[in-house]
Parts: sequence; C-alpha cells; structure tokens
Amino acid sequence: MTLPSPLTGVVPPVCTPLTPDNEVDVASLERLVDHLIDGGVDGLFVLGSSSEAAYLPDGHREVVVDRVVRYVGGQLPVLAGAIDMATLRVLDHVRTAAAAGADGVVVTAPFYTRTHPAEIARHFRLVAARGELPVFAYDLPVSVHTKLDADLVLELAADGALAGLKDSSGDDGGLRRVVLGARARTDLPSFAVLTGSELTVDAALAMGADGVVPGLGNVDPHGYVRLYRYAREGDWARARAEQERLCALFRMVGVGDPLRMGASSSSLGAFKAALHLRGVIACPLTAAPQVPLSEAETEQVGKHLAAAGLL
Amino acid sequence: MTLPSPLTGVVPPVCTPLTPDNEVDVASLERLVDHLIDGGVDGLFVLGSSSEAAYLPDGHREVVVDRVVRYVGGQLPVLAGAIDMATLRVLDHVRTAAAAGADGVVVTAPFYTRTHPAEIARHFRLVAARGELPVFAYDLPVSVHTKLDADLVLELAADGALAGLKDSSGDDGGLRRVVLGARARTDLPSFAVLTGSELTVDAALAMGADGVVPGLGNVDPHGYVRLYRYAREGDWARARAEQERLCALFRMVGVGDPLRMGASSSSLGAFKAALHLRGVIACPLTAAPQVPLSEAETEQVGKHLAAAGLL
Amino acid sequence: MTLPSPLTGVVPPVCTPLTPDNEVDVASLERLVDHLIDGGVDGLFVLGSSSEAAYLPDGHREVVVDRVVRYVGGQLPVLAGAIDMATLRVLDHVRTAAAAGADGVVVTAPFYTRTHPAEIARHFRLVAARGELPVFAYDLPVSVHTKLDADLVLELAADGALAGLKDSSGDDGGLRRVVLGARARTDLPSFAVLTGSELTVDAALAMGADGVVPGLGNVDPHGYVRLYRYAREGDWARARAEQERLCALFRMVGVGDPLRMGASSSSLGAFKAALHLRGVIACPLTAAPQVPLSEAETEQVGKHLAAAGLL
Amino acid sequence: MTLPSPLTGVVPPVCTPLTPDNEVDVASLERLVDHLIDGGVDGLFVLGSSSEAAYLPDGHREVVVDRVVRYVGGQLPVLAGAIDMATLRVLDHVRTAAAAGADGVVVTAPFYTRTHPAEIARHFRLVAARGELPVFAYDLPVSVHTKLDADLVLELAADGALAGLKDSSGDDGGLRRVVLGARARTDLPSFAVLTGSELTVDAALAMGADGVVPGLGNVDPHGYVRLYRYAREGDWARARAEQERLCALFRMVGVGDPLRMGASSSSLGAFKAALHLRGVIACPLTAAPQVPLSEAETEQVGKHLAAAGLL
Repeated sequence: MTLPSPLTGVVPPVCTPLTPDNEVDVASLERLVDHLIDGGVDGLFVLGSSSEAAYLPDGHREVVVDRVVRYVGGQLPVLAGAIDMATLRVLDHVRTAAAAGADGVVVTAPFYTRTHPAEIARHFRLVAARGELPVFAYDLPVSVHTKLDADLVLELAADGALAGLKDSSGDDGGLRRVVLGARARTDLPSFAVLTGSELTVDAALAMGADGVVPGLGNVDPHGYVRLYRYAREGDWARARAEQERLCALFRMVGVGDPLRMGASSSSLGAFKAALHLRGVIACPLTAAPQVPLSEAETEQVGKHLAAAGLL
Repeated sequence: MTLPSPLTGVVPPVCTPLTPDNEVDVASLERLVDHLIDGGVDGLFVLGSSSEAAYLPDGHREVVVDRVVRYVGGQLPVLAGAIDMATLRVLDHVRTAAAAGADGVVVTAPFYTRTHPAEIARHFRLVAARGELPVFAYDLPVSVHTKLDADLVLELAADGALAGLKDSSGDDGGLRRVVLGARARTDLPSFAVLTGSELTVDAALAMGADGVVPGLGNVDPHGYVRLYRYAREGDWARARAEQERLCALFRMVGVGDPLRMGASSSSLGAFKAALHLRGVIACPLTAAPQVPLSEAETEQVGKHLAAAGLL
Repeated sequence: MTLPSPLTGVVPPVCTPLTPDNEVDVASLERLVDHLIDGGVDGLFVLGSSSEAAYLPDGHREVVVDRVVRYVGGQLPVLAGAIDMATLRVLDHVRTAAAAGADGVVVTAPFYTRTHPAEIARHFRLVAARGELPVFAYDLPVSVHTKLDADLVLELAADGALAGLKDSSGDDGGLRRVVLGARARTDLPSFAVLTGSELTVDAALAMGADGVVPGLGNVDPHGYVRLYRYAREGDWARARAEQERLCALFRMVGVGDPLRMGASSSSLGAFKAALHLRGVIACPLTAAPQVPLSEAETEQVGKHLAAAGLL
Repeated sequence: MTLPSPLTGVVPPVCTPLTPDNEVDVASLERLVDHLIDGGVDGLFVLGSSSEAAYLPDGHREVVVDRVVRYVGGQLPVLAGAIDMATLRVLDHVRTAAAAGADGVVVTAPFYTRTHPAEIARHFRLVAARGELPVFAYDLPVSVHTKLDADLVLELAADGALAGLKDSSGDDGGLRRVVLGARARTDLPSFAVLTGSELTVDAALAMGADGVVPGLGNVDPHGYVRLYRYAREGDWARARAEQERLCALFRMVGVGDPLRMGASSSSLGAFKAALHLRGVIACPLTAAPQVPLSEAETEQVGKHLAAAGLL
C-alpha cells in the first residue's frame, strides 16, 4: 500500500511471539495482528524494540516482516525496524524489508561504535539514498546511547532523507522542538512525528504529534485507539481519562524482581504474559538471555489486566 | 589447529581492508595477514572492533573469517568476533565462525537492550553451551555500556563457559583482579587474560596477563612482538622502552579533526592510512558512515610512521 | 509567611545578578524580584540551578536568600536551594535558609559521591527530620547523575519527609507517575508536584502538576503566568499558544557557540543577557568559569526578545 | 614547609574519623596521622574523596586541615582537597587551606553544572592565578563525570597553572600519556604525576609516575611505603609481591551488601572499620547518609586484616 503522508494514528510496535523452542510462532503472530487490527490501529511497526528486534536473528526477523506484510495484505501500512550497528548492516535489513513489501523502515543512529553528529547525518542520508523505502528516524537514547538532535532531524527531513521520527527518548521538550520546527517549515507537510512514550500520549498529541507507537498497545490497542480518537476530536478530558487508565495498566512493566532480571525482561515479559493471559499468543516466552517471569509475577500481570477490565 | 591453552602472546585484531566500493579487499587482507605473521604474532583476531565488525554486513564478516582461516591454514590460531546484540544473534555468528574453521569466538555482553548481571551470565552460558567453539569474553564498556564484573568472569571461567577474557576496558585494576583471581584458583590453569589496552601492555604482562590484542599491532606487529618477548624474558627496561615507542606511535589515533569526525573514524582511519602508506593494503577506506581522513590528516599519520622508523 | 499547601502556580528560579567584580548585585536582584512580582508569579525559588547556585560561594548564597526574603516581606513564599553534595553540608544550607526566613528548601539527592537508593532515602529523611523547613526534592539527573524514582518520592512524601517535588528531569512520564501516585493516596493532599521543564508546562499542568519552576520565567514571567492561568481555566488552546510562544523564546538558550562554551554558559548567559537588555539587571555577567556571550551572541538574544515582543 | 618539587612518594588521602555525634574526632585524627607517619609516608592529603570531603561541612573541613597542619608541624607536606562545584566556591576552600598553612590544594574540574573543556581550563587557571597555593588537578571521573584530557593537563602544567595531577580515573593509559608528555617537555621538571589507583601502583611507578595517593594506605601505610621503596630500587619482583598482597587486602572494599548500601558506604566503611579494629581510631562511623557496615560485614574486614597480618 502507499504510506499515508504523513503517517498518523496508532502504530503499535508488534510483539514477536515465540514458540517454546525459540522460533517465531507465526500463528500467534497472526492472531496478534488480528487483535491489533480489531483494536482499530492505523499501522503496524514490526521489529522494533518491543518486538525484541535486538534479540532476533536475521532469519526470525525475515519471517516476521514477510509474514506480517503478507497477512495484512495492504489493509494497513507496515513499518519494519532495521535495527543494527551501522550503515551497511542497516542497508541489508532495509533490503529484506523492501523485498518483503514493507512500507517504511525505522532506523536508529549508529550504536556500539563511537559516533559523531556528522556521522549520524551521513548514516541517515546513506540509508535514505541507497535504501528503497521511506526512513523513519528512531530516537532511543537508552539503547543507542546518543540522543538525536532536533535540528539535525529537521535538517534531514528538509533534505528528504526522513519521512518521520519515532521519538522514544522520553524527552517531550525535545519532541515539541521537532513538532514546532516541522510546522514552521512549509516544506515539511508530510513529515510524521510519532511518540513512543506510552504515558504521555495525550500530551504529545496536544503538542501536535501525528501519532503514537505504544508498546503497551499490544496489550490494549482499543485503549490507545480511543485515546487517539478523543484527542483528534479535541475531547481532552476523555483523552486524559483514557491515558490515565493506560498509565495504571502500564505499571505491569515493573512486575519483574529487579534482583533477578533487567528492565527488558520485566517489561517485555509482562506484555507477553498479558497477551498470553488474554488468549492472543500461545506462549509468553521472551528471547534469550532474558529471564522469564515467575508464576507470582505473571499473576501480578493478571491483576493489572483485571483492574483494567481486560480479563 | 588446536587453540593453545591458555592462549598467549600477541593476537592483533585484524583490520578489514575494503575496496573503494565497500567490498572486502581479500588480496589486501591476505597481505595484512602476511605482514602480521611476518611480525611474529601468536594468533589473529578477526571481526573485532578494530576490524570494524560493527560496520560489516554478515556477508563481509563471513568472507573475512573464511578467507583468513583458509589463508592461515592452521599456522596460527584464529579467533573470530561474534559481535551482536543478544544471544540468538551471537549464536548465528558463532555457527558461521565454526563452519569457517575458526579456533574460538569473542563475545560481548548483550548491548542495545537494557541488561542485568543475571542475563549477562545466562548469555555467556548459552553461547558456551550451544556454541561449538571456545568463548572469550570481550569487555569493552565504551561500546557495550556495561562493564564485565571480575567475579562474574571468574565464575563463568570456573564453570567452563569461558576460555579467556579480552579486556579492552582500560581499567587495569579490574584486569589485575581477574589475573589474581584466576591464579588463586587451581581449576583455571588454561584461562587466558588478554589486554586490549595498547598503551599499558608492559604493565599488564608484568601483572600476569597472558597476552595482548593491540589494534596498533596492525601497524607495527614487530614492535608488539618485541615488547612481548622482552616482558617474557623479564627484561622490563627494554619492554618499557619498546612500549614507550609504541605509545608515541599510538598518537596517530588523534589525527582526525574532532569537529568533522568521531573517535572511530579517526583511529581506525589512522590505522588504515598507516597500512596503506606502508604498502600493506590497497585502499585506506573505512566503512560508512565513518568520515575519511583528509590529505593533511593522512600526512600526519605518515609523520608518525616516519618518527617511529616505519616508513 | 505560611507556605501554601500544596504550593501551586509559577515559582521561577531567580537568576542571581552579579556585579562586574563577581559580587551579588543586590539592587539588580531586587529589581528582578520586582519584575517577577509584577509578572504575577506565585512564589520565588532562589539558589536553584538557574540561579547559578553551583557557582556561588556560601557568602553570596547567604546574601541572596537574606535579601530576597527581606525584600519580599512575606508577599510571596520564598524557597531556597540547599544544593550540596551530602547531608551534613545540605543541613548547613538549610540552617542558613531558615535563619533568613525562607519558607522551604529544595534539595537534590547526594552527588559527587557514589550513592544508592537507600542512601538517597536516608538523606532526605535526615534533612527533613533535622532541618527546620519543608523540603522539596529536586530531580535534576543532568547534574546529580541519578534519577529520583517515582515510588521513592511518593514513599518519602507519605512519611512526611517531602512537601513537594521539583522535577527538572525532562521525563514527563515519570512526572505523571508521581502526579497519579500522589492523587491515588488520600494522605498526600498537600504534596506539590512542580515541573522545571520550560517547554512542556501546558502538558504537565494538564496531567495534574501543581505548578512550574521555569528558568525562562526570569525573562518573561508574564508569559508563564498567563500560561498557568489559561491552564487553570481549562482554556487549553490559549495555554498551548502561549506555551508555543515561550518555546520560540526559549531558543535563546542555544545562542552560545558550542566550540567556545558549555550549555550552562550559553543558557544562563542568554537569560542574563535578556534581563540586561530588558533593563532589569545592570550587568549580564555569569559566574566563573562560565564563558561570556560575545556581542554577536548577545545580539541574537535581542532578536529573540524582539520576536517575542519583549523589547 | 616547602613542597618538594615534584612531590613524590606515598601521600595517603587521610580518612576523617568522626565521633558518634558526627563531629571531627581530633584525637583519632592525630593518632591516624601518627600511624601514617610511622608508616613512613611522604606527605598527607586531607579532604580528599577517601576523607569523605563530599560529606563534610565547611566547619569540619576547616578543623581537619587546621589540626593536621598544626599537628604535622612541617615534618611532611600537607595537601588539602578543595572539592566543590565551581571556581568561586573552590577559591573559598583554597583560602581556608592557605590560612591553615597547607602546602598545596587538590582541585577537580567543575561538577554538578554542565561544563566544557574551555571552562575547565579557565577554572584551573583562575584557581591558580588567584589562589595562594600550588594546585594539583584531581581526575576522578566517577565523581566529576568528566575526564581530564591529557593534553589539557599538560598545557596547564606548561603554563604554570598546575603543580601536579592526582589521577584516580583508573585509566592507566591516560596516566601514561601525561607521564610521557611531561617527560618530553623540558619545561616541566617539577610536575608531579600521582596515581590514585590502589591496585596498579607498581605499574604506575614503572611507567614513571612520581607517587601514589592510596585510600587503602590509611589501613596499611607500611605496605605502600615498602612498595614504593622497592619500585624506586628497581626491585620489581618484590614491588609486585607487595602490590599483590595489597590487592588482596583491598578486597575489603566489597564487604558491604550492595542491596543495602552504595560503593562509598562499603569502601569507606571498610577503611574506617579496619582503622578501628587496628586501634587507630575510636569510632568507625562514616558520615551521613552513608549506611554503616553490619557486625558481620565488620567481621569480614577483620578477616581481611588478619589474612594480611595486620591484626
């Protein structure tokens, strides 16, 4: 399909269900896509951080993008993460995504290697110039260990190197600088600013963001879709109430014992446990070396779902 | 060949020469291997950070390990980096390295994703358990953004999960903790501690380290081999003099203008420029998005070589 | 005066005007207080980060709090920063603030020393228990290098150790967690959540924050007071328009050349240049070792003021 | 006394004994000074990080420097830390140290505030120009959150702004760059490079460092003095054996439970517990908000002392 210009609405980063022996569970993945489409989402983002892209071998990644694009069949735009350390590696992923028929790719600054603003700019320009798909910059300093500068993003957008920004930095002041900068330029009507911060979506939309990429949207797509609709209708009171309900639900990410596991195991483990408890996916396994939730921790996830009326 | 147990001596991380169109320049790579073997090195480490592993697509990586192993033909042990974000991705690289006939793999803690000591331990255990090759832990906090704890390394070594440590943290106190901890255990006679810090090799060897993995060893393998030999002979005065000569040579890593490029472009650019000026490789190109050295910067590299008697 | 409970509204961190020989310029400071009161602010926060507290010797700090409290004469509550590395040093500043008649103190987690959640909690409890004034926690990870955890803040609030939070972390999701957590507890009716993020005040107020501590409020107190009033009236469209005007004005913090100076020199230099250009303070000097703005950079500040209708 | 030029040998950072009610325990402090002088140290460094300078109010700091200088009576040079956030605050501490008769001051780059290389240079130049005492730069990135650049240190030394460097960065490659850079300049014969890394003193001395500032030297000054003497005599085998004994002793810094306390509470708590167990100081209390060692943890310290033959 043609990518909306700009891309707007709710575009969840799709979790990647695994079988007990660590393969992509395609049947569960398709049920998850159904669940999201049923929720009313506006697009899908496969192979993002919430999809455990960092954990998935290239074979798994290829299965995911290929099967989701085919299953969706053009009903919705599908973005694919091309998460890797530097340009040539990213270009390989872009090629795979394009071959599978994805509608855009999501790309971070280089990581692992020590980098520089000039190299970050060069990276995005090369991916845009030689890749075959619209490029969304992915700002995730907690993983990438550099923050994308608002002025650099706008400059790349003006040069046509970027179709949008997925801002998961948690820095809403920086997000606003991009939103206002993009609006101030008449040459950027189709540049999309999407927030990845689940807890401040109403605020980001009020500031002028175009959409949201919420990890928690896997668990409750209907909630984020309602939130988005209320915001678009200017009904900020209802948007806020919906957002606050989702904030309470989001507390599930803290169920994992910090003595036993890291934040990724806990939060992605909670999302997958919730999808399992809701009957969407067959197995809540997260990819190695993440530590599984205990039974008691999974029960806590269930309580969060129940409190939100989702069980 | 069988990996020496423990691995000792000078094991340079082999630069990856590229053609002007970004392919692996196999002829130059083989000349570089000859240059290193002629220098008297004890092993080769392909696909490390100085090899631009973070920048190389899997296809390039496979060519490198395959061609180097075949070219070396068992004269020397060849370690291969399996640099990637998490366990399943690393296992893919281990498989490739094993298929190519490498003698060991070098693996970091998970990166990009937020991690935890328990997950780091699980990661190394899984790679060791399911991989087919001896595993060396690679401690590089500047890239990985976590530091490997000395006690964790020793515990993994005692469990047979690690054959050695490549410590590029720059923290020689931590290196010494591992050296002393390994020596204190009678069950670790074959655990190798290798330093990646080019400027303090004499010190690390005096502390009891088994060897060195010097990026600068690409440029001057003979120097590091002399340094290692003097140290093994207990001739610390000559070891120190050789080390100080290499410290002066190492200043080439700073030739790149920090307004135009990052530390990787400057240091890897300098190593490759030096290899080009010395006639070892055909083209000094570093992989995208690194910024090339200017002519004036390359001239500076030449002056460093001349001052060290290498031109 | 009695501190409102909770503290609400616009509480600017008051810049500290200096004479050309680095003394506190009391006359200018009093004019600045007049300017802020004229703007309609609800309280004053002296000796915060925007006040250059980190740069001011104790003698200067004492003059500032003493003169401002006396000059204000109970018209408005005055909070004083007690910015120092650990508990006993902070307690000295609390004593000075109490003696001068301040209405509350603002305290960070320990810094410079390596710390721990248990020590941070102990720090705030000791300051609260032995200090004589209500304590506001100051969350400023860019300076303190730890982030205050939302649950810890709420626990301290519930124990009576904290009267409020000044959140300058830029993490509006975390701010919201505190706001929602405080609202969920019936025992915290008087706990104040204040944002220090100049660019997202409308969002923070919409989320339920009680007020704002804007460095830029020195330059344009009237703007932040209007913004606050619109938000309280539920007129979010006008609040947003006012906020966007202030976002444009805030761009002045970037006038300083990053090759010549750091972010503090540039942003505090811009605020003081603006106050000087507006005729409020006599001299735009920032404290050593900050680098002064050039004439051209100061002219840029003037252009920002003119564009905002403030010259 | 006149400061030796350069300062050489063992210069321990003197712990600050406290009474149970958090005052400076002068009698214990004097016993500690006797203990260190008896150990044969070459100088004393009061108010460093191991002295808990970050925790001590100015009144305590003044008592410490005043009493130690008077007690020492010119037998040994006394350096005083002037640890504070920025220039004017540091200058206040320099004045106090000079008035008390200290022989030099130890100064970090600015911290808490965001800084810049040009501002760091300006900071040291201003302290040197307006202060009354020789200035030693203190490189402690774990606290200051910037690393002093070797070239900047050498430039400041050449300009006469610095009498020496106390390098507690743990980066022995960086230390070596300063040592070699200073030796290469004929105008820096009196610039002292002192390492603060307890575990690699033999290595630093072999590289050409002038001396050592070991926190663990409080507990075992005789050991560090022997180590220094062996190194100066060129008896590297005995130096290494002594260093390895001290490395084992240093493991006491890890006795504190990381679930209950931070690294400062554990390591400074262990040093003070050891001094208490050895009968040097009356009370092992560390300053608030540090968490005290438990009885079991203190027993562990005793075991480390016994194993080292110090009980």
